[in-house]
Amino acid sequence: MRRGVFISFEGPDGCGKTTQIAKLARYCRDKGYDTVVSREPGGTPISEKIRSLILDPENTEMDPRTEALLYAASRAQHVAQLIEPALEQGRIVLCDRFIDSSIAYQGFGRGLGDGVRIINEFAVKSVMPDITFFLDIDARIGHERNAREGKADRLELEALDFHRRVGEAFREIAASDARFRRVDASGSIEEVFGRIVTVFEAFMAERG
Amino acid sequence: MRRGVFISFEGPDGCGKTTQIAKLARYCRDKGYDTVVSREPGGTPISEKIRSLILDPENTEMDPRTEALLYAASRAQHVAQLIEPALEQGRIVLCDRFIDSSIAYQGFGRGLGDGVRIINEFAVKSVMPDITFFLDIDARIGHERNAREGKADRLELEALDFHRRVGEAFREIAASDARFRRVDASGSIEEVFGRIVTVFEAFMAERG
Repeated sequence: MRRGVFISFEGPDGCGKTTQIAKLARYCRDKGYDTVVSREPGGTPISEKIRSLILDPENTEMDPRTEALLYAASRAQHVAQLIEPALEQGRIVLCDRFIDSSIAYQGFGRGLGDGVRIINEFAVKSVMPDITFFLDIDARIGHERNAREGKADRLELEALDFHRRVGEAFREIAASDARFRRVDASGSIEEVFGRIVTVFEAFMAERG
Repeated sequence: MRRGVFISFEGPDGCGKTTQIAKLARYCRDKGYDTVVSREPGGTPISEKIRSLILDPENTEMDPRTEALLYAASRAQHVAQLIEPALEQGRIVLCDRFIDSSIAYQGFGRGLGDGVRIINEFAVKSVMPDITFFLDIDARIGHERNAREGKADRLELEALDFHRRVGEAFREIAASDARFRRVDASGSIEEVFGRIVTVFEAFMAERG
């Protein structure tokens, strides 16, 4: 059977990834594609356990390297147990965050540099997204969207300045790899979704 | 203040590490050295939480890469929060397992190869043991010691053959690095301890 399609969604908090993924999943299923939605860190029971360790506000003493390795561990499990089997079954996998979030948040945001890419290459083996939507939005707008929704886990509590650095990092990473599709994430949900569908259809047509 | 001394203990399950570490700690304290005992995976509250994830018999679907990354995450926290500060305070740190266990168990035992060393170098930065005691024992004897003690977490349940491979791996790693002190771990507790004290005193004398 032909390998499926792996699509990841990246961008700073509040860029609207989760909403857009749900809409694209519905769109894909309506077109008859067997589609799986997943998210990082998480996606499998073991990954979820790791996720709750990372996001637990109690763990304030967590070292940045510990955090980066936990994200990579969660990802390794997610790839082995969910993404890889789904792709082998020919399914479309839509994933909320993947390796690029680690490179942006831990590599750039926390200053851990290229080591983050290296530990994540160990985690994913060679399973990489076919395309990656980068939902680009001004850090301040993203931050305010989150604040309105009352989200406040440990990472959401980080300062606006950190969000700005992460936004810059995403732009830099996205510019460096043809796998990325940068999408303007400002405007209404329907406007943004229209942009995503156009890119998705172009990719599927190219793929043939 | 002068940097402390970092000593790790390695060897297959049942080689007697824990007993020998307790004895050496008592010995060091009697001589007036400020001494900390720790263990891996563990040593800090966050590391302990990661440890319980790794050893939970429920997590039978854990991918070998996930396991290796969790060990590295636990180690990163252990280094940042306990080992590095203790060494900066001039203390002696005795550690039950460190980076070499990962290389032996995950790298060799589970066939993950050199990637295990790479992710662990990210975890420990440059904090490496001054000396490492390798308690060398026949895999069968170690396995039987464990069985008698009724230990049966997920890793202890692995087959004897795996233990043999790990023993071989430790021998190979130990032969490749001057940091190692191979000690014959057969015989009585007092006999083995006598060997360890001789090596320890030689190291301290050299250090001056």
